[in-house]
Amino acid sequence: MTSTNTLTLDTANRMIEAGRASAAQLGVDMNLAILDGGAHLLQFSRMDDAWLGSIDLALKKARTSVMFRIPSADLGDITKPGDTAYGIDRSNGGLVSFGGGLPLKDADGRIIGAVGVSGGTVEEDVMVAQAMVKAYA
Amino acid sequence: MTSTNTLTLDTANRMIEAGRASAAQLGVDMNLAILDGGAHLLQFSRMDDAWLGSIDLALKKARTSVMFRIPSADLGDITKPGDTAYGIDRSNGGLVSFGGGLPLKDADGRIIGAVGVSGGTVEEDVMVAQAMVKAYA
Amino acid sequence: MTSTNTLTLDTANRMIEAGRASAAQLGVDMNLAILDGGAHLLQFSRMDDAWLGSIDLALKKARTSVMFRIPSADLGDITKPGDTAYGIDRSNGGLVSFGGGLPLKDADGRIIGAVGVSGGTVEEDVMVAQAMVKAYA
Amino acid sequence: MTSTNTLTLDTANRMIEAGRASAAQLGVDMNLAILDGGAHLLQFSRMDDAWLGSIDLALKKARTSVMFRIPSADLGDITKPGDTAYGIDRSNGGLVSFGGGLPLKDADGRIIGAVGVSGGTVEEDVMVAQAMVKAYA
Repeated sequence: MTSTNTLTLDTANRMIEAGRASAAQLGVDMNLAILDGGAHLLQFSRMDDAWLGSIDLALKKARTSVMFRIPSADLGDITKPGDTAYGIDRSNGGLVSFGGGLPLKDADGRIIGAVGVSGGTVEEDVMVAQAMVKAYA
Repeated sequence: MTSTNTLTLDTANRMIEAGRASAAQLGVDMNLAILDGGAHLLQFSRMDDAWLGSIDLALKKARTSVMFRIPSADLGDITKPGDTAYGIDRSNGGLVSFGGGLPLKDADGRIIGAVGVSGGTVEEDVMVAQAMVKAYA
Repeated sequence: MTSTNTLTLDTANRMIEAGRASAAQLGVDMNLAILDGGAHLLQFSRMDDAWLGSIDLALKKARTSVMFRIPSADLGDITKPGDTAYGIDRSNGGLVSFGGGLPLKDADGRIIGAVGVSGGTVEEDVMVAQAMVKAYA
Repeated sequence: MTSTNTLTLDTANRMIEAGRASAAQLGVDMNLAILDGGAHLLQFSRMDDAWLGSIDLALKKARTSVMFRIPSADLGDITKPGDTAYGIDRSNGGLVSFGGGLPLKDADGRIIGAVGVSGGTVEEDVMVAQAMVKAYA
C-alpha cells in the first residue's frame, strides 16, 4: 500500500520468474538483478551454474540503466577509445557498456528501476532482460 | 546434479520464501540474503518497505558467517574495545558483529554458504534467519 | 512537472537558504547537504569558513537519515560498545550516529530524502537541520 | 574577509546560478559542482531531471581540473590506449578525461578551484561550465 518502491515484491518476483524461464529456454544459467529507481538492490537470483564473474556484471548493467536511463548497450557507443565519453564506464563505481541492462519506466515515462542480466552471450543476456521487462509491463 | 553450488536455486528459493513468511508473521519488512560457500551472492530479496540501509547489513551479516563460519553475533564477543580482536569487523570489506547472519552447513559439517537478514530488531532478524536455515535443513 | 525527484530544485534552494540563515544567526559556518530518497546528492552548500572535515559528516548524516528513515542521532542509541547494533555505523559506506541528519517525509509519510548539517556543535547542527526541514514542510 | 576559501559563498552562488541559466537555455537538466583549491566540495546543485549517473561525473570532472590544473578534456589527449599516460584517469579515486571540468584561477594564475558539469552532451556540458567560469571572472 504505502510501499517505498514503485516496484513491489510481487512484481519483482514475477519478473525474476520470467527471466529464469527465458534463460532456461536458452539453456543458459544466468544471474538476474533488479534495482530500484535509486539503484539499490531489490531482488537478485543466481541460477545453479551461472558464472561467479557474472554477478557483478548483472548488478552493474542494471546500475548503468538506472544511472543514465538507457539500455546498458547504449553506453558502448560513447565509451570506446576515441569516443566522446571514453572512460565514462569507470565512473559511478563501475558501469557496463554492453547489453543486458534495461531501464524500467512507469506510465509517466519515469525511471523506477532496471534489470541486469549476465551469464550468456550478450545477445542471450539481452533476450532474458527483455523477458523480465515484459513481465513488468 | 552438476551444480557448482551445493545450494541449488530450488533450495535457495524455498529458504527465501520461509524467511519472507517468518518476517511477514512478525509484521516487519526485511532484506534477505543468501551467499554461497565462497561468499558470493546467490539470492537476495527485499520486501516492500525494508530499510535501504539494511541491504548492506543483510549482505555483510551473511558474509561474516561465511568468512568465519559462525553466527554473525559471535563476532560481537571479540570485537568490542578491549576484546581480543577489536576491529576485526573492519576487515574483509566490512563485517557485522551482531545477530542476523547464520552459516549453512552440509551433512559433513562443512560451510556451504550463509544467510543474512536485516530489517527488524536484532532479535527479529535472528528469528527470520533461523527460519531460513530451518527451510534448508 | 515530470521531475524525477519529489524534492524539486526550488524546494531544495529554499531549504538551503533557510539553513544558511539559521547558521548565520548562530554565527557558525556550516556545510549543508540535501540527498534524495535514494541517498543521491541533490544540493550541497559550504559556507565560507566551514571545516573541511564537516563536508563528509554532513553528507553521511543525511545518508544515515535516508537509509534508516530516522534522525541520525537515533543511531547513537544502538551503536556504542555493548549496544544492540554496535558497529552499524560502519555499514553502508559509513554512517554517522550523532545529530544533524533529519529525514524528509512526504504527505504519506514516505521518505523522500534527508538533510545533513555539520559545522557547529551537535546542538547547533540539529537546529540548522530543523530549520531546513521546516522550510520544506 | 578571513574566508578559508578564495571562492566565497556569494561568488559560488552566482556561478551556480549562471550555470543553471545556461543549462536551462539549452533545455537540459544538469549537475553542477564547484570544488575548492584542495578539491573539496564547495557547492553542488542537481537540476530536477538530471541523470543520477551525472552526479559522480560532475564531481570527478571538477576534481580532474583541480588535480592537474587543466580542463578535464585535456586529459583525454594522454589517456587513451597508446597515449603517454594511458590509465591516468584511474588514479586519484577516478578522474574524467572528457569535457565539462574547468579550472578556476585567481589574478595571479593560481588554481583556486574548479567547476564540473554533467548532464548533456559533452559540448553542452562544456558550454555550461564556461558560463560558470565567466560568472566567476
